[in-house]
Amino acid sequence: MVETFNAPQSVHFVMVGTTHPGNIGAAARVMTNMGLSSLRLVRPRRFPDPEAIARAAGAERLLEMAQVFDDLRSAVQDCSFVIGATARQRAIEWPLFDSGSAAARLVSESGRGASAVVFGPEASGLSNTELDLCHAHLRIDVNEHFPSLNVATAIGIVAYEIRQQLALSTSNQVSEQIPTPATVTMGEFDGLMDHVEQVMEETGFFLGPRTKLVRKLRRMLLYGVKSGEDVNIMRGVLTAIQQKLRASRS
Amino acid sequence: MVETFNAPQSVHFVMVGTTHPGNIGAAARVMTNMGLSSLRLVRPRRFPDPEAIARAAGAERLLEMAQVFDDLRSAVQDCSFVIGATARQRAIEWPLFDSGSAAARLVSESGRGASAVVFGPEASGLSNTELDLCHAHLRIDVNEHFPSLNVATAIGIVAYEIRQQLALSTSNQVSEQIPTPATVTMGEFDGLMDHVEQVMEETGFFLGPRTKLVRKLRRMLLYGVKSGEDVNIMRGVLTAIQQKLRASRS
Repeated sequence: MVETFNAPQSVHFVMVGTTHPGNIGAAARVMTNMGLSSLRLVRPRRFPDPEAIARAAGAERLLEMAQVFDDLRSAVQDCSFVIGATARQRAIEWPLFDSGSAAARLVSESGRGASAVVFGPEASGLSNTELDLCHAHLRIDVNEHFPSLNVATAIGIVAYEIRQQLALSTSNQVSEQIPTPATVTMGEFDGLMDHVEQVMEETGFFLGPRTKLVRKLRRMLLYGVKSGEDVNIMRGVLTAIQQKLRASRS
Repeated sequence: MVETFNAPQSVHFVMVGTTHPGNIGAAARVMTNMGLSSLRLVRPRRFPDPEAIARAAGAERLLEMAQVFDDLRSAVQDCSFVIGATARQRAIEWPLFDSGSAAARLVSESGRGASAVVFGPEASGLSNTELDLCHAHLRIDVNEHFPSLNVATAIGIVAYEIRQQLALSTSNQVSEQIPTPATVTMGEFDGLMDHVEQVMEETGFFLGPRTKLVRKLRRMLLYGVKSGEDVNIMRGVLTAIQQKLRASRS
């Protein structure tokens, strides 16, 4: 039932806090239609559920294989490129892709390591904190007077675009990559961010609005830190600062 | 609620013999999302219906405006170009479009007169007789082992492609938003790098091969630091570290 493409298995679709199991089933159906096979669920309200199975209309295999996680961070910890869907135009300058370029990027990144595309709960979408965990954001172009897409419809559009891109890339191999790809897993990266925050805490840097500053630091590092070696260097810098601070304190 | 485009009002979406009213509602929702406004129904099993309204999720206006017909022939009688969706590769050599070229054609034809795209019943799709009424056929590229698309999903994909085509035709500008290029002058950037080196010096970080490490830090920052504000944040971080170090030293 599942086709084999270049490497589409390493594009994970992540649904966060889905309220209606029917939407999970519909997502499984359209993903299978498009030859995609990895669905990850973060805190689904009801799963497994007969409504999901009914709406999957034969794509139960993908539901059976779906992995369930407690939070987004653990759902994407093995991914090196993560894109989060949003209906908003955000103030902060996170890279914003349209559906076509998001799909192209997810496909090209999946050639190097796993990539993921993340969709939020029906009513609210992804929170700012969840969007911060992503390298880039995706906004499907819609009628601005009626922008609220059903989550399975949004997944269908991205899955469709990925299939189009895979068809393209097998024939003429487009590989425009700006900026150069991250080969750091989100697990490694989040560890680094924890370390950064810890050092900022120790230096008393957080006098102002913490969340906003951490978000900006995160974005800078997300684009700057591109390999395990980079992570090690940054870790080395942070450890040196901490040792110095602790030594002079004692 | 309905946007005005070039002439999308004259691309009619026709659903033939739809069994589940929920699919009619879902179609109305995604059509409205994509700025399209003409839905025509041929012998819907249940319409109007509360399930259609629920799944329309606010796009009731399109349901209210939907016209109901007794047969496909009367539903498309005012159209000058009609394309019928099919999951099959037909034996007879009717022109067969993929979703992208079907959308392009529907848009270009709607400049001359009304055009229509037709979708059949959930279980069986359009009959051969109904497909014969069309100028061309449309087959959305899917996994051949699991080709059965939900009808509202198929409508969503075509509506999405029409919106893409309209966006292309109204402005030829590519809207791919890849992280904006650095707007930091090299002077600012070098000042920042000097500051980084100074802090590294103070923390005693440079025990190993200095040049290589500085180069790597520089590359990371070069990709991460993208604005004057970013420079200021990094400078703030560095200054906080220095102050802490100096305070604990004295």
